[in-house]
Formats: sequence, structure tokens, C-alpha cells
Amino acid sequence: MPFLSGTPPYRPARPVFAIVLGNTLLSTVPGVSGAGMSPEKTVLTPILDSELITHGVIRSRKWKPNTPTGCPTPAVITRAMSVLLGLSPLFINAGLTNRPEVPCLDVYGEPGKDPRDGDAVPGARDLYARGEQVGRFLSQAHDFLLLGECVPGGTTTALCVLRGLGIPASVSSSFVNNPVALKEAICARVQERIRVEGAKEPLDIIRIGGDPMLAVAAGMVSAFRGDTVLAGGTQMLAVAAALRGLGKKVPPVVTTVYVRDDPSAGFAATAEMIGTQVYYVDPGFGALGHSGLARYCVGEVKEGIGAGGAMFLARVVGRSEEEIREKILSTATSY
Amino acid sequence: MPFLSGTPPYRPARPVFAIVLGNTLLSTVPGVSGAGMSPEKTVLTPILDSELITHGVIRSRKWKPNTPTGCPTPAVITRAMSVLLGLSPLFINAGLTNRPEVPCLDVYGEPGKDPRDGDAVPGARDLYARGEQVGRFLSQAHDFLLLGECVPGGTTTALCVLRGLGIPASVSSSFVNNPVALKEAICARVQERIRVEGAKEPLDIIRIGGDPMLAVAAGMVSAFRGDTVLAGGTQMLAVAAALRGLGKKVPPVVTTVYVRDDPSAGFAATAEMIGTQVYYVDPGFGALGHSGLARYCVGEVKEGIGAGGAMFLARVVGRSEEEIREKILSTATSY
Repeated sequence: MPFLSGTPPYRPARPVFAIVLGNTLLSTVPGVSGAGMSPEKTVLTPILDSELITHGVIRSRKWKPNTPTGCPTPAVITRAMSVLLGLSPLFINAGLTNRPEVPCLDVYGEPGKDPRDGDAVPGARDLYARGEQVGRFLSQAHDFLLLGECVPGGTTTALCVLRGLGIPASVSSSFVNNPVALKEAICARVQERIRVEGAKEPLDIIRIGGDPMLAVAAGMVSAFRGDTVLAGGTQMLAVAAALRGLGKKVPPVVTTVYVRDDPSAGFAATAEMIGTQVYYVDPGFGALGHSGLARYCVGEVKEGIGAGGAMFLARVVGRSEEEIREKILSTATSY
Repeated sequence: MPFLSGTPPYRPARPVFAIVLGNTLLSTVPGVSGAGMSPEKTVLTPILDSELITHGVIRSRKWKPNTPTGCPTPAVITRAMSVLLGLSPLFINAGLTNRPEVPCLDVYGEPGKDPRDGDAVPGARDLYARGEQVGRFLSQAHDFLLLGECVPGGTTTALCVLRGLGIPASVSSSFVNNPVALKEAICARVQERIRVEGAKEPLDIIRIGGDPMLAVAAGMVSAFRGDTVLAGGTQMLAVAAALRGLGKKVPPVVTTVYVRDDPSAGFAATAEMIGTQVYYVDPGFGALGHSGLARYCVGEVKEGIGAGGAMFLARVVGRSEEEIREKILSTATSY
């Protein structure tokens, strides 16, 4: 397996690496999200990860950037690539429960609500429009947009949106054992709400059952004038599907082989149904001699906060596989 | 008098026009600020102005972008230049009382408190550091930073900071009759607090008596790697003076002749004491046949939210005086 599948045609001169942060209250439902020490603490993960990527350490709280099993957060990978490339990501606050610790381009959204009981993102249309403004702004100085995300619980909202758009998708998880039954139960209730309302339009589907990141990311991509690559797993497939439904150009998605190889997710099949091109990154974490990173290979974490895309961009701008692996290993070892 | 004094050496290829928004509670003290329909409403001016610049209209509230005498807010000028140049400003939220209506790069500060009773900006050092992060980020894609501001009541905090830094400044006002006695009374109490503490360092002076914009703007300038021009009146002189006190490179300031000609401000003398170069823009609003714009010539409004700098940038990138005046007139006439 090569480090990077395919031969991406990009030669960005002035890339921007934007990462959309958001929350959905679904992540606090026990069992939905593995992105955090406890269900209540999952909402803090975007804030802690953005702090780690920006400063190299989490200053605001005494937390280790690892899962309870010692598996490093994907923010460690994104941090390593950011340092390697000298490229600071731009964090977009699409709707966070807590106040971030680093500057964010804030569209002043709200965290997503529980979609079982009512509209998850009442302001979806407005958030999409604000995402468009951000996309237009970034077009002024950048020729390439790599767009990542961090939304704990976001694979469940992605499932709701993909299904709502008529795509018989299943989705990935940061847990080794994907809580499929729980996600399906939530999704069934959301599909019923979509059916009752007769909603078909992507921004209505996101309003009913999505999260703020999905609306903002779709708006950004639709208005950005240069090349765009979506960096992430099934959540970015939901963005791609929304763009397809809106009649917009659908950008390629880059993710890790750990997402591709999640049998419960069916990533490749879903991407094919949407009609989006996919690049896979295989950083070979099993052979680095780091027990935490090796857990990615058994299906823990897998991807997140643009990690796959960050490694992809490093290759695209000419960094060697060895440099990339070495930088990730030395960064992960430092914690 | 030429449209632009001096011959600026800039040929920006990828300029960014950033405007730092902030509040100080001082603007709600009756008589301090003319930037708003009433003292309580002054805190909303940065939000309404940023909305006007972004969308061309104020959507969120049914307000006219004029003073009670029909004098257009300087945001009309900034809007006109933004459209003429196809350049959307980047708004920086340094600490606003209310939630903005347009996306902002938010450093998650707080509005400045009343400096008579206690520290105005307790987080000044942290805000400076976050401004540095923003400056570094913008350096990745931009070779030129035009930095404006909008802080109602900000000339009074600027006075406190300039005096605290040992500069015997007076400051300008958006009122025709500058409420000098009130500003001096506030300033005297702040100088006493500075004296008691023995504060000398610029970020301590800003903490005691400044506003969040001053800290963020100083941080941004100190970390931006390309050319920088400060766009504004005496508030930007306070930023320049803080940078001087921090031992940083001091950028030039551009402002309108309406600020220069304010006898109560002594702008040129203060700039000379700080040792900062100044460019003056004379858009000739008296000869446009617009009674509201003509009020700038009798000393109303004068400048604000980067208006002088926006006209400066238009000239620097090659737009003619006629194009600039025509665009401002047609924009102001449309309201």
C-alpha cells in the first residue's frame, strides 16, 4: 500500500488549512462519541485539540492529549504536520458550547441540538451564508483550501444527513466498536421527522438532523474559488453529499486508511454513491514502534481534525514519507 | 492640498484590510462618544458598521447609517472602497459587548471596563499574545496589512494610554465639539491609578486604562511580517506609541485631514512626539454636493473604521481620485 493513493493534481502556492469546529449535544449522550474522557467532556475536545495544534500543549487544562488507552488524539498528527509545513491552521467556530482558547474565525453559530426532539440547527441557512462569506474572504489570498473538521458526535449527525439525502450510508466511529445500534436508533427518529416534514433540500436536512459544521463547511466550499479538498471521514462525505444535493461542485475527500478499513462504515461505497473522488493516506502507524499510534491500526480514533488531510498536504507540497512519519513520531513521543 | 500627502512606497500584491472591533464601557458614559444615536447604543456601532461594510445594508436593525444630523458613518466610505477594490475587510473581534452579525476573527476578549474604577483590560497581555497569533497567521498569505479599528469611546482610552506612556497628547472626537473636559477628568483618574501602581510597561498601561483593541492591534502589528499601515486617528497613535514603548518597529499611520485639522486633537504634534510617519487623505468632501459628507469638513465624525486607510489603499493600488470620490458619493447617496 503506498503512502498516498492516487496522484493528486494540486500544486498549491498559497494554501489555507481551515478546520471547522462545532458541537452537537448528541456527543453527550452516553455511548455516542469516543472523542473525550467522558460523554460530558466530549464537547471540550475541539477546544483542547485546537489549543494543542496551535501551541503544542494544552495550557488551559491539565489533560493529556490521549484516549484512556494511550492512543494520541489526531490533533497530534495535525500539530506535527502544521509544524513541518510552517502552516498554522485557521480554526472556524461554527458553533461551540464553550469559549475557545485560541483565535477562531467565528460565524457566531450555536451548538447543534439533539435532533431527536426538534431542529438540530435552526439557523442552518444563515450559517451556510456565513460560510459562503468566509469562503469568499479566503479566496482573496489563497489558491487552495484544505478543509478539516472537529465535531464530537458528528458521525451520528453525518449519518442522519446522509440518510436524509437518500444515501443508504453507514458511518465510522472513533470507538473501536462502533455503537451502530445506538446511532441507528437516533437516526431512525430523525428520518421520521424528515419524512413527516417532507424535507428534501440539503439545508433543510441539516437543519432537522445535522450539526453547525455541516452548514458552514458546505457554504465555505461553495464560495471558495480555488481548489478544495475535504479532509475527514464520513462527516466530510456528508458535506460532499450536501454540496451534491445543492447542485454545487463536489470536491475530493481525503482520509486515512483507518477510516477506509472500518467495516462498519463502508466509506468507499458511500463515497461512490455520492460520486466523490477519494484519496487515502496510509501513514503506516503500525511500524513506528509507538504503541499509542499503533492503536489507529486496530481501529481506534482513525482520523479527526484534518489529520489525514494534513498528511496529504505534506506529501502534495513535496515532503517525504520519512519526514512525515518522523515528525509525527517525535511529536507523539513528546507527550 | 493633494488627495494624499507624501508618496507611500507600497506596491502590495496580496493586501489584507483588517479592522479590529472592540468596546469600552466608557462609551456609555453620557457625553464621551458621538458614535451612536445615544450613549447606550454606542456599543452597537462596531456591529452595525461591520454589517454595513459586509452587506451594504444594516439587516439586523432598522437603523440609518447616519448621525442625527445626516452625516454618514465612516463605514459608508469603507464600504465604498471595499466594493471599488473587491477587497472584503477581515473583522477582528477584540472584545465586543454584543454578538456580531458578520463573521469575525475572534480572539475571545472582553469589552473594556470603566478605567476609573479598576483595570480596564485585565487580559491585556493575553490579548496581545492572541493578536500576535493573528498577525503570524495573516503573514502566511498576505504581504501588506492595513489595520483599522472601531471602538466607540476609544479616543478617551487612547488619551489615557498616550498620557500613561508619557506623551502629553490631546485626542480627537467624533463630536464637532470635543468633550475635552470630560475626557480630561476621566484621564486624570486613570493617570492617578497608573502613578500609584508605578506602571511603565505599555501592556500594563493598556491593562489599567486602555481598551481591548489597543492590545490586539499592537500584537497583530508586532507579529505581521510584511508592511503595515495603521488606519485611524488618535486611537492608532496610541497603538503606535505602545509599539514604540515595547521596542517594536512603529508603522506609519494614515488618517483624514479632518482629524489632522481638529485643533483640540493636535494630531500632527502627537505623531511627531511618538516618531511615527503620517499620511493624510483629503477626499474633498466639501465639494461633492452631499450635505452629509460635507459635515466631515466642519469636524463631524472625521474618520473611523479604517475609512481614511481604505481611501489611502485605493490610491496606493492605482485608483484615481475621481473614481474614489465618485464611489463614495454614489454609496452615500444610496442610503
